[in-house]
Amino acid sequence: MQKDHAEEPAGKEFYTLEGPVTLENGHHLPEVTVAYETWGHLNADKSNAILICHAMTGDSHAAGIKGAHGQAPGWWETMVGPGKGIDTDTYFVICSNILGGCMGTTGPSSINAVTGTPYGTDFPVVTIHDMVQVQAALMDHLGIQRLHAVIGGSVGGMQVLSWCKNYPERVGSAVALATTMRHSALSIAFNEVARQSIISDPHWSNGHYYGGEKPAMGLSVARMVGHITYLSDEAMRSKFGRRLQHRDEFSFDFDDEFQVESYLHYQGAKFVDRFDANSLLYITKAADYFDIEPGFRENGALKRLAESRCPMLVVSYTSDWLYPTYQNREIVGLMKRHGVDVSFCEIEASCGHDAFLLPSDRLTTLLTGFLGKERHV
Amino acid sequence: MQKDHAEEPAGKEFYTLEGPVTLENGHHLPEVTVAYETWGHLNADKSNAILICHAMTGDSHAAGIKGAHGQAPGWWETMVGPGKGIDTDTYFVICSNILGGCMGTTGPSSINAVTGTPYGTDFPVVTIHDMVQVQAALMDHLGIQRLHAVIGGSVGGMQVLSWCKNYPERVGSAVALATTMRHSALSIAFNEVARQSIISDPHWSNGHYYGGEKPAMGLSVARMVGHITYLSDEAMRSKFGRRLQHRDEFSFDFDDEFQVESYLHYQGAKFVDRFDANSLLYITKAADYFDIEPGFRENGALKRLAESRCPMLVVSYTSDWLYPTYQNREIVGLMKRHGVDVSFCEIEASCGHDAFLLPSDRLTTLLTGFLGKERHV
Repeated sequence: MQKDHAEEPAGKEFYTLEGPVTLENGHHLPEVTVAYETWGHLNADKSNAILICHAMTGDSHAAGIKGAHGQAPGWWETMVGPGKGIDTDTYFVICSNILGGCMGTTGPSSINAVTGTPYGTDFPVVTIHDMVQVQAALMDHLGIQRLHAVIGGSVGGMQVLSWCKNYPERVGSAVALATTMRHSALSIAFNEVARQSIISDPHWSNGHYYGGEKPAMGLSVARMVGHITYLSDEAMRSKFGRRLQHRDEFSFDFDDEFQVESYLHYQGAKFVDRFDANSLLYITKAADYFDIEPGFRENGALKRLAESRCPMLVVSYTSDWLYPTYQNREIVGLMKRHGVDVSFCEIEASCGHDAFLLPSDRLTTLLTGFLGKERHV
Repeated sequence: MQKDHAEEPAGKEFYTLEGPVTLENGHHLPEVTVAYETWGHLNADKSNAILICHAMTGDSHAAGIKGAHGQAPGWWETMVGPGKGIDTDTYFVICSNILGGCMGTTGPSSINAVTGTPYGTDFPVVTIHDMVQVQAALMDHLGIQRLHAVIGGSVGGMQVLSWCKNYPERVGSAVALATTMRHSALSIAFNEVARQSIISDPHWSNGHYYGGEKPAMGLSVARMVGHITYLSDEAMRSKFGRRLQHRDEFSFDFDDEFQVESYLHYQGAKFVDRFDANSLLYITKAADYFDIEPGFRENGALKRLAESRCPMLVVSYTSDWLYPTYQNREIVGLMKRHGVDVSFCEIEASCGHDAFLLPSDRLTTLLTGFLGKERHV
């Protein structure tokens, strides 16, 4: 097989899906542009493609440090590349920005062809199903009928489950990491705090702030909330403890003082530079709507999944309190009860929900084995 | 003993401590007014007084539904009253609003005698130690040299520990519920999100908003964050699950939709009506500064506490993830290692940190036994 230069990705590509694209809520989008990146080479029978689904605020740039376009390291650099858990010497790997996002795929900051101005909150509310529908159209465009695997963590894991439900015949295998089959009240609550923080910012202007000042403060606080949920009590204790940022003594004022405060401020500010506030509203809402169990039970979806002989791997992390192990186990339980070939692994990790994004020999070994490297070498 | 009419409290009383009152950070307050309420009767040798320390946003109104002033039920109605866990037929119970608060005790919304206008953020940063110093002055005023008990949960529990450290000879016994001896990075993180939410509200105006519009949106979001930490995943699942507020189907917009969202909005709005945003800044900061272990180790404080034969009771709740059991156990461990007579109980509860405020036969029994009712009947 031809050597793949995964460290030099082609960069971001675009595909425009001519509409109208009908969404789960009945609304239509006149067209949808999808930003995506690929690594490795599609083999002759197009059987070695792996789709990676990114999480809440990720993008198509999953890997490729030395990008032709001077890109930053990918968000899953540790797992995607030659010889890695998702081996680009073997597989043709695709990652696309989700519908509603702000990294090249159509979302609320895109131009509404009808008005010639950004959609803002005129953008229709989208669901995880809608995101996956767009991904499926991209697979059609790439000529990929059946994926070797669909893989994703967190909100990406929800997309994996949606693939399994809606396109079981197109999914050769599925890996869902640190995720849930229904968004819990606690997760909805955190998302609603993030949304209210944005909506409360006067610069949000009912979502029509493009061209003016961004709701930076609200978005920053929203991100701070997010980062708390991505970590764990244990991770915060070891990473920050009660250490002070600048001084040896308390300052007795309301500036940055504890290192954990500086960390949150930094994450908030960094996020404002790279992410659109409306996209966070839409994507959190899509996650909140996610409850795939009823859909799995309808129309024989689970039967079709079992019959398609799509092996599934579900992975949870001990310290993940956003989508705790019991929620991942619920997926496993449902699948097992319906004859789906599902494996489960709980990985010991102290770093909370973010664990799935961090280097992990355990996950690398799991993925390598699960994806059955030998089949395509 | 004379019958106490706990259900008809005297109402809020005030005591003004003439200053200058020197704070832990070296700043001075020209004077401090303390709002407090009492229930029951102080006995002749003034040995039956119990001080209740309220939590973050509580007030002096711990009990007394049928108040002479048309008061609402007290925040610890279930535990304080005739025949209850803290029996006002037996004990003279005192609860005062904390320094920095906004329920009658001097805080950032109080008038600065020097300028004739509210302090705002000119109010000095206060600590748990400062709050307790003011409570001790109130005890002096009431002629109470030694308290039969000091009791409090959460931030109230921190005050209990501060009493034990600073005034071991004045504490007959101590009950600390659902608390910690040092504020963790996770708790600081949540508090900082709450503070940033307030500070980001343009109406906050650097803390000098009195007379103008309040930072209502920021304060509301801050409270929403708080309420998430007061509950638990389990409590949220059973209380709200994924139930919708108004409709049978998703609305596909950003209004209130899930019941958990409505709950948070309601709690946020209710809080804005009753609480001052600056007070939340100051009290969260005091909690963040709280780390009593070094102080306990200095100057023989633990030795004095052990010698004063002050029995302690520490109670944690299984689902409390703000001040989890392991943090309460740390208090117990420290005390035991230094010969303090400490008991510990972890109460099974699904409702999270708020459990200490809810009706609990278990806690009632524990408190009744611990306080040694027979000694004062």
